[in-house]
Order: sequence, then C-alpha cells, then structure tokens
Amino acid sequence: MRVGFIGLGAMGAPMALNLLKAGHAVRAYDIRPGAADALAAAGGAAAASAADAARDAELLWLMVVSGDQAEAVLFDGAAAAALPAGAIVVAACTQAPAQAQRTAARLAAMGLAMLDAPVSGGVKGAAAGGLTIMVSGDAAVIERARPVFGAVGQRVFDVGRAAGLGSTAKMINQLLCGVHIAAAAEAMHVAERAGVSLTTMHEIISVSAGNSWMWGDRGPRMMQADPPVTSAVDIFVKDLGIVLGEARALKAGLPLSAAAMQMFLAASGLGHGAADDSQVIRAYRALNGAGAKAPGHGK
Amino acid sequence: MRVGFIGLGAMGAPMALNLLKAGHAVRAYDIRPGAADALAAAGGAAAASAADAARDAELLWLMVVSGDQAEAVLFDGAAAAALPAGAIVVAACTQAPAQAQRTAARLAAMGLAMLDAPVSGGVKGAAAGGLTIMVSGDAAVIERARPVFGAVGQRVFDVGRAAGLGSTAKMINQLLCGVHIAAAAEAMHVAERAGVSLTTMHEIISVSAGNSWMWGDRGPRMMQADPPVTSAVDIFVKDLGIVLGEARALKAGLPLSAAAMQMFLAASGLGHGAADDSQVIRAYRALNGAGAKAPGHGK
Repeated sequence: MRVGFIGLGAMGAPMALNLLKAGHAVRAYDIRPGAADALAAAGGAAAASAADAARDAELLWLMVVSGDQAEAVLFDGAAAAALPAGAIVVAACTQAPAQAQRTAARLAAMGLAMLDAPVSGGVKGAAAGGLTIMVSGDAAVIERARPVFGAVGQRVFDVGRAAGLGSTAKMINQLLCGVHIAAAAEAMHVAERAGVSLTTMHEIISVSAGNSWMWGDRGPRMMQADPPVTSAVDIFVKDLGIVLGEARALKAGLPLSAAAMQMFLAASGLGHGAADDSQVIRAYRALNGAGAKAPGHGK
Repeated sequence: MRVGFIGLGAMGAPMALNLLKAGHAVRAYDIRPGAADALAAAGGAAAASAADAARDAELLWLMVVSGDQAEAVLFDGAAAAALPAGAIVVAACTQAPAQAQRTAARLAAMGLAMLDAPVSGGVKGAAAGGLTIMVSGDAAVIERARPVFGAVGQRVFDVGRAAGLGSTAKMINQLLCGVHIAAAAEAMHVAERAGVSLTTMHEIISVSAGNSWMWGDRGPRMMQADPPVTSAVDIFVKDLGIVLGEARALKAGLPLSAAAMQMFLAASGLGHGAADDSQVIRAYRALNGAGAKAPGHGK
C-alpha cells in the first residue's frame, strides 16, 4: 500500500522501516529535520510536510505523541485535506477516547475513515514488529488496513465499531499499569520500613500470587537510587489523567486509579517528574519517612 | 523427625500426608473429630488433643487459620507446655507480624524456639508439596527445620532473624493480591461501562504490561455472574485489615491498600462477604451503576 507516516520518534522510526521492509511504499514526515533520512536511505521517501506525507496515500499512519498533536497534524497541518478520497487514517497515538471520537467525526465529515488504533509494546515491540494493536472502526476498513497492521504488529485486537473503543482498551491497560506501579512502590515501601530485604521480597513476589508484569519490570528499578529512565513519572500523570478524565465523563468513581494518580502527582510535585516512573516510591518515602523501623515496632 | 501437626484443613491435611511420605513420624490433631483418620490410616497417628500432638514432638507445625487460633492452641490448649525442651514451633498460619512477635516472645520465655513461617501456594500447592515458605527466626533453628520444610514446600525464603519478618513478607504478598484484585475489578468495570467486550479486554491485558497474576486468575471469574468460591471477599477484608493494622503500627499511610480495603468492605457490606473475591466488582457496580453507557458519552 501507499502509506503516509507521520511521527518518526523512538517507536515511529522503526515502525516505518518495518512497513518498508514488508513492501509498502512509505513517505514519512517528522517535525524534526533529518528524522526521515534513514528511511529515505532505506528506499522510502522523506516528505516536506505533513500534507506532503498524506498526498496520494491510501493509508496515513499517525504515530505522534498525543491526540492534540494528531489534530494539529490533520487539521492545522492540512494532512487530512491532502488525503485522497477514501483514504484511511490510522490514529495510533495514545489519546483520550473522547478525543478519538471527535477526530473520527471530523474526518468522516471530510469523507475519510479513521481507525482508532493505539498500540502497546514499547520501543522493543516497535523494533521487532511485535506491537499489540487495539483497533476500533468500520470492519471493512480494518480489513483493508490489515496488511499494514501485520507489518508492525504481532497481535491485532478488534475492539468494536465505534471510534473511542480502541483508545478505551489502551486506557484500561494504562489504568492497570499505573495502579500496579504504585502498588509495587507501596509494597516495596512497606518492606523497607519493616526491615525486610527488598531483594528477597522481590524474589518471593515474583513466584507468588502478588506478582504483576510491572512488579517484574519496575520492582528492580525501585531498588536503585537513580535508575535510567525508561518511562517517566510524568507519563503516568498524563495517562492516569486520561483515565480519570474519561471516568469523569462516564460518571464513574475509580478509587484505586485516583489514589495511584495522587502518588504520581506527588512524585512530580517533589521534583521527580522526569525520573523513571519506578521512582514513584519517592512519594511514599516523602509521605511516611524513609529507612527501616526498629524490629518489634508493631508490638 | 517427630512432627506434631495441628490443623488438618484443606491445606493442612495434604501437608501432613506429605510429611508422612517424606519419612517423618507425624501425630496430628484437628478440632473436628475424625479429621486425622486418613492420616492414621496412612501410617501416622491421630492425637487426642493439641497437647497430645505436641508431646514428644521435635517440631510442632501449626497450620491453623489465624494467629488467635495459634495462641489458643499453644497456650490455652497447652500444646506449648507439652512440648519437650528445645522443640521448634513452626507458626505457618497467616497472622499479623506483631502477633507473631508476641507469640515468639512467649515461647522463648518457655525455652521454645519459634519460626515465623507463613506459606503461600494454596490447596493446590499444599497437595503437590509445592508451597512457598517465608521463614524468619534463628538461622540454626531454620537449618534444623529444613527437612520438614522440604517435605511440604518447593521454595524456602529466609527473610531474616526477627520473628514477624516472615509474616511481614506474607502480608506484603497479600497487600499486592488485594490491590491487584480490586484493580482488576476497577478495570473490568470501566470496560463494561464504556462498552468494551470483557472477553477481548481480558485477552488484551493478558499479553500487555497491565497484566498480573490476579488478572489471569480472577479476571475470568469477574465475567461470571456467580462463580464458585475459591477465596471469599471476607478473606481480603481480613488480610487487608492485617496490612492496614500493621501499617498503622509502622505509622505508614498506604493509599492504595486503603482504597482496595474500602471496596472489599463495601462488597461485604452489600451482602457479598461469602462470595468469591472476584465479586468485589459488585461494589463498583453499586458505586457507579451497571451496564454500558451509550457510545459517544465522553464527547
């Protein structure tokens, strides 16, 4: 297929290359000059603008950071207007379901079909072509997009027909990720306050019913004073913000998500917003004090 | 070793048999008449009382339900007084760390060594001799108990010297279990309110970073109206109660555990205390309403 691709960041760049390798014609644009050079050298094309990437494309893949960026590219940057009639827009960014619905409606009014198709799997998954794609939209449009999905993702989940459902599925994953990271920090904090070795605690939970994907991934980084940043505290301030905003629209109180949000917010307020998200544990230390209590405290 | 065993419930009964198979001499007692018959038929002995089980034992294994029951058996039931000097008491029940400390101190004053050694792995692990044991206590005493641990458990984690540390490790596992079950219910509830298929959602999370052991185990039961009870809502009212009581003694605020506790309490208050713990999702439905909102709610 003729694919326009916008957003060549840490995930977008390898995804665009994977599309190329799978035999698609890829013309890509990124706001940073030179970002498309590697793709052009590999046989793709560097577009001069978002609209230029969209021109003649059968499918436009948006791999930007947010729903706001997606709207800016499509409407302010005129990519939507540049697309030929009947083209598909794949909104693969993480955004609020309500924003995905809004953008889909605007595109539909222009005769363009949108797939609400956020991805998960991170930079590693993007490089390996092993992303998980959660897509909602017209069933026939999803079928037309399958060859493109197949080039970047290992698993494609059809979440339903309405725009917003794909983003809701992704948001629910982020809800669990955020709560599980904060829960891991809470558990590690209890262990350090009670004088239990964190290394032993990590081994125990890893083979017990309290285990989670995040415990395995973030737990070891909670034991480091200043681990390298894989994903920052402020990303979860944003993602749990989407969860709670959408829950507000649904009129649904979410006690755990709300509590987790406060801990990420507090970590950010303490000046650790750019630190690795495992460092939400610093908010617990600020809240309750650090270091182990003397044995027998609880008598 | 000569092992006295008290508490032949769903976990205790197969554990006592495994001790017998491993070559230990087992004399067991349970408050329910006839509970030791199977063990006696297999070559063990049925004791007439807790004190009778303790008489001549080198090691007394307490597999009762709570720390209160352990104290009742040891002190009111006179099992401690019946033990020969130098015997080991293995407190394998789930109890508050402070209670484990208190009991260990009382036993020490009688010349008896206690190992604070709660287990995890459930009935399945007990039957297979595959439990995880989290033990704290004197290192030499732990070494003496190893042949017994090896007969019931696959993994033995040495959590430290002080009584209470073993129970703290188990408590931290329960903290994570309770928060993860409530988080799974919160996520499932958002999915059902937003009109996402729960089956699809379960598949997505199972291969994503939001996954947890509890999501895999309890998630499917949240999709059932009235699943068989594997572990009841009120068990987590108890276990998170231990977590929050101990955190109070540590002077540590635990926002996620506290929020999860409210949801289990609410489920119990709604009359579902004896239901499967996956049914904490009913508290979410009571809180926010049940059923899907119309698509486009969030515009």
